[in-house]
Amino acid sequence: MSVLYKSDPVRGAIWAERFAQLAPDIAFRMWPDIGDPTEIRYLVAWQPDDLVLTLPNLEVVFSIGSGVDQLDLSRIPARLPVVRMIEPGIVDGMVEYVTEAVLAIHRDLYDYALQQQARIWKPIPLRPAASRRVGVLGLGVLGTAVLERLRLFGFACAGWSRSPHDIDGVECFAGNAALDTFLARTDVLVCLLPLTDATRGLLDRRVFAALPEGASIVHAGRGPQLVTDDLLDALDRGQIRSAVIDVTDPEPLPADHPLWSQPRVRITPHIASATSAVTAADALLQNLRRHSSGEPMIGEIDRARGY
Amino acid sequence: MSVLYKSDPVRGAIWAERFAQLAPDIAFRMWPDIGDPTEIRYLVAWQPDDLVLTLPNLEVVFSIGSGVDQLDLSRIPARLPVVRMIEPGIVDGMVEYVTEAVLAIHRDLYDYALQQQARIWKPIPLRPAASRRVGVLGLGVLGTAVLERLRLFGFACAGWSRSPHDIDGVECFAGNAALDTFLARTDVLVCLLPLTDATRGLLDRRVFAALPEGASIVHAGRGPQLVTDDLLDALDRGQIRSAVIDVTDPEPLPADHPLWSQPRVRITPHIASATSAVTAADALLQNLRRHSSGEPMIGEIDRARGY
Repeated sequence: MSVLYKSDPVRGAIWAERFAQLAPDIAFRMWPDIGDPTEIRYLVAWQPDDLVLTLPNLEVVFSIGSGVDQLDLSRIPARLPVVRMIEPGIVDGMVEYVTEAVLAIHRDLYDYALQQQARIWKPIPLRPAASRRVGVLGLGVLGTAVLERLRLFGFACAGWSRSPHDIDGVECFAGNAALDTFLARTDVLVCLLPLTDATRGLLDRRVFAALPEGASIVHAGRGPQLVTDDLLDALDRGQIRSAVIDVTDPEPLPADHPLWSQPRVRITPHIASATSAVTAADALLQNLRRHSSGEPMIGEIDRARGY
Repeated sequence: MSVLYKSDPVRGAIWAERFAQLAPDIAFRMWPDIGDPTEIRYLVAWQPDDLVLTLPNLEVVFSIGSGVDQLDLSRIPARLPVVRMIEPGIVDGMVEYVTEAVLAIHRDLYDYALQQQARIWKPIPLRPAASRRVGVLGLGVLGTAVLERLRLFGFACAGWSRSPHDIDGVECFAGNAALDTFLARTDVLVCLLPLTDATRGLLDRRVFAALPEGASIVHAGRGPQLVTDDLLDALDRGQIRSAVIDVTDPEPLPADHPLWSQPRVRITPHIASATSAVTAADALLQNLRRHSSGEPMIGEIDRARGY
């Protein structure tokens, strides 16, 4: 039985070492050295392209990222399960990134940065966290972990997702009909949604208008979910006060893009979270064992839903 | 029995309302309307100056801040206990501020800000929190609360104080002899010490040299603890990579001070934490009850030690 890895070779070397150590019975191969294609049962890749079609005995396609929107699902035969990466490294990174972003907005650090540029020493009245309403779009593993951490700071926490969820201490909203109610109570909107046809372009002027005036955005979902022109317009009018943007469309963000120079917009280059090689290799091994013993794999997507 | 309040009148109005609601038997007076000075048993102030000497029946002096360094203890008769403010609002604010600062350093956000100015989209390799060694100077109520929150992110946490402490999951160092060992293992140094003769000028070239090269500083103690020229020099040489500075000497920081324009230094105007009027009034009421019933008050300082 072989696993074929097709992604960053530096991380691949860490995976190879981890497999040799923990699962010496599994042959770990790094593309393009695929060996005998008939031996390959599992493919782990960022973008497999048509490689899938050349592996007659392939049983599962694993995405190396937490999303699968970079895959063209129509080019993966329907019989093959597709599994996204759920591993503690991705979760930890996202909890760090979003916690920092929400605290920076809560504590007016973008305003203090502007004051620093102007050499102005002027305290801004401090608001208690309980009066700051944070709302997270997307209540999967990432959204839930983020809310559980933010709750410890005393923020008024809510979450929204397509299907109903129940998270201790978090007001949960579900479905399109509840979206506006959720937005109306949200001062800091965090987007952690997967990219699907339903979420493409979701963060648009309609959503910004449904937020309270002066709300802020933390976008760590996927670039095409954000209508950048609508955000720039909402920032101009003060409807949106500040934004922390980790994902853009396109990526990299072109050097002449107006988003770079907005005074209360922070851009980071899609680094909110990344698969950690060591813990991801362990998560894959766990899923291989689950698959061998007929148990459901962690992160298997619903191909009709797209995530 | 009367309480005399001498501080910001806006907050004073909140205190007056809280006292009227929860302790109608206690007369709450706002300076300069002190009424009969012989009735005043308790004084709560930022800087009482010589007011203390005009109140013959005064029993306790309460500082309205978490420190007492703004008080001239030599002008307060030795028979009077001096109590600093310990209330949840101050603790919450400090936990928010330091958590944000440590996460921003950990996630290279000062470098990303410089990249954003140059319109450069370039990911920096992500380090796991477990490899980032955070060290907190000062293990009182604030330092302990900060460490307990940082620990949840998986940082390698340590603390240093004059006297021995024991905090779950935190490596605790005590006394001058252990300071260099503590500094040598600290990538992000957080100062939450009280200002005393022993801590004045503590953050100097010797301390910076004892840290690993490229360490960062979060200073939310008191301004005179930091030797600014030594910090500027350490930043120039790369010994210190970045600094988050909330307290300066003097305050406000003069507009022509070189600290304002350092690329990896963030200045905030002493806002890391502030006494919250509502919870502080409750904390004072609790201490008044403790004093009446002969119990030790929370936050009573050791006048010889100075904190």
